[in-house]
Amino acid sequence: MATLCKPSVSVPEHVITMEETLELARSRHHDHPQLPLALRLIENTGVRTRRIVQPIEETLKHPGFEDRNKIYEAEAKARVPAVVREALDHAQVLPSDIDVIIYVSCTGFMMPSMTAWLINEMGFHSTTRQIPIAQLGCAAGGAAVNRAHDFCTAYPEANALIVACEFCSLCYQPTDLGVGSLLSNGLFGDGIAAAVVRGQGGTGMRLERNSSYLIPKTTDWISYDVRATGFHFLLDKRVPGTMEPLAPALHDLARAHAWNASELDFYIIHAGGPRILDDLTKYLRVEPHAFRFSRATLTEYGNIASAVVLDALRRLFDEGGVEDGARGMLAGFGPGITAEMSVGTWQVDGGDRARQTAARAVRAPA
Amino acid sequence: MATLCKPSVSVPEHVITMEETLELARSRHHDHPQLPLALRLIENTGVRTRRIVQPIEETLKHPGFEDRNKIYEAEAKARVPAVVREALDHAQVLPSDIDVIIYVSCTGFMMPSMTAWLINEMGFHSTTRQIPIAQLGCAAGGAAVNRAHDFCTAYPEANALIVACEFCSLCYQPTDLGVGSLLSNGLFGDGIAAAVVRGQGGTGMRLERNSSYLIPKTTDWISYDVRATGFHFLLDKRVPGTMEPLAPALHDLARAHAWNASELDFYIIHAGGPRILDDLTKYLRVEPHAFRFSRATLTEYGNIASAVVLDALRRLFDEGGVEDGARGMLAGFGPGITAEMSVGTWQVDGGDRARQTAARAVRAPA
Repeated sequence: MATLCKPSVSVPEHVITMEETLELARSRHHDHPQLPLALRLIENTGVRTRRIVQPIEETLKHPGFEDRNKIYEAEAKARVPAVVREALDHAQVLPSDIDVIIYVSCTGFMMPSMTAWLINEMGFHSTTRQIPIAQLGCAAGGAAVNRAHDFCTAYPEANALIVACEFCSLCYQPTDLGVGSLLSNGLFGDGIAAAVVRGQGGTGMRLERNSSYLIPKTTDWISYDVRATGFHFLLDKRVPGTMEPLAPALHDLARAHAWNASELDFYIIHAGGPRILDDLTKYLRVEPHAFRFSRATLTEYGNIASAVVLDALRRLFDEGGVEDGARGMLAGFGPGITAEMSVGTWQVDGGDRARQTAARAVRAPA
Repeated sequence: MATLCKPSVSVPEHVITMEETLELARSRHHDHPQLPLALRLIENTGVRTRRIVQPIEETLKHPGFEDRNKIYEAEAKARVPAVVREALDHAQVLPSDIDVIIYVSCTGFMMPSMTAWLINEMGFHSTTRQIPIAQLGCAAGGAAVNRAHDFCTAYPEANALIVACEFCSLCYQPTDLGVGSLLSNGLFGDGIAAAVVRGQGGTGMRLERNSSYLIPKTTDWISYDVRATGFHFLLDKRVPGTMEPLAPALHDLARAHAWNASELDFYIIHAGGPRILDDLTKYLRVEPHAFRFSRATLTEYGNIASAVVLDALRRLFDEGGVEDGARGMLAGFGPGITAEMSVGTWQVDGGDRARQTAARAVRAPA
């Protein structure tokens, strides 16, 4: 049984607040006819702070696709190893225990992929499988979890390392002036997350069933326009409403597992924006409190793309985890429009149980 | 058991011969100090013809990354469906029988990926898993086969569709003047291949064991320099010599399967260039005849990147296949330097056997 262990998450040191974002929008787009709408949409995101890899002045300069991609590569190489090391520690495995690295990122492009660099630099076996995925956007966090689950199902003794590295700030495009672009400028943040899926043992979400769902004929709702200036992110105004067509797929997955999606013990959901979480409250018929991990990620970091689900799961761990046997769901959403979903049961590893009980005891008086 | 069924392959209608390639090199680089070396290297490839998606005059123009990527998208959408349909027919499955689409391509970039477009346009279920891979280059053909194998190992009733779509001509960069670039201009061709890996039944290579191997510290031997003008392919002169460090990995895989890599019945090998095949003759201790399928792909189409292994396998099928139970190996090589390898046994499906016997009877008198 594959268990998704505690993720490690790192966000960069440069902070941009909601107030700074709004002020930038006002000063840079003061004559934009839809500025009031854009400001309202940004305020509605609830994103209070974001963390970005460069100071905002540098981010706004846009030195070109080539330079940006070089920044992506340099920052990824500088920041990913520490996150990976911590994820391995959380899962109590060594680099030599890892059989496959699934690296997902839609905000930079390298060939060879970071998987090859990580194998060389961090002591993974030369025989480690590499699955780099660049084209699933925000859904790639859920996809990585699901492909790791599949791999451990095929090879029950195997361990998979997942890495989600997203520097959305490097995709800022100063010449994109649609309302969707102005909103995106205030929504997306940077972050790196990693987690191990252990084939045997481990404490975390035991992955039991996964599924994928594509909403028919929505490929142009979230997309990249690939230009000399880089990837231009296009966000259609229909995207916030996608939980209505996607919720049945979440219900279907739970039902296939003989569960009721409305009655689970934990929910780790991609916080694409506030409406996603608001609507899921309605369509899954659960309390807003159920999405507190995702909401916290959105509020503190913004939408960090494929890394959101891993950060939300990290917050659940930080809260002390849930009871052994608790039932939950994890779901990433992204271009396609694609949902990558899984359901599973919380598992406390024998060796980890004593430590967790101690941690809970400490928290109890609060 | 997962069986890799007969691939379907399509190459574009525009032909460029070795003579035309040499003449272009002479006329465009007449003052290049290393022109004689480049011409010799191109002649040594043995690539007699290549097929490209646009007339050569258009290819040489390079209208910019954005336009090229639009051409990639339009040509992929125009050409991939027929190849996929034929691959499904070869495997005797319907779109609704497919559980995962693995789309590999390093010569264009789309988000959403072609996987989403194919699901919408060709009648695949909305629940079909999508695995688009852009960063494994020529190794991605082998990687796709191996990930399909893993998926069918996890879900023994599942079927996987593999698509390799490579328009290398769209990565031609007129300002790249290194000898490696001039050689690449004469080596790579365009092609599309698709194949189904059936979890149950099917005639073809029954996939039994796979592995991956990264030669340490060689990430800069094959790479993309990502620029405003697109992906600039960098090919180091040490690449043709990579079979010496990779051959032990091929031997290891066979040995793990209690086989001898020198004594297999068929070999489906990525024909990156002529030296790859020449050296494998030596390091695997097999006759050059064993690589006739790969050699034919290289001679007629050039190096069509991730599609090579599927085209070589298609040629084995066209020759009439091999005996039920014959043992073989498939291997793709690419950036990393990464090898994606598998071994398996030829399986003739009960229902297909009568037809194959009939086909062999017809061929026998020749």
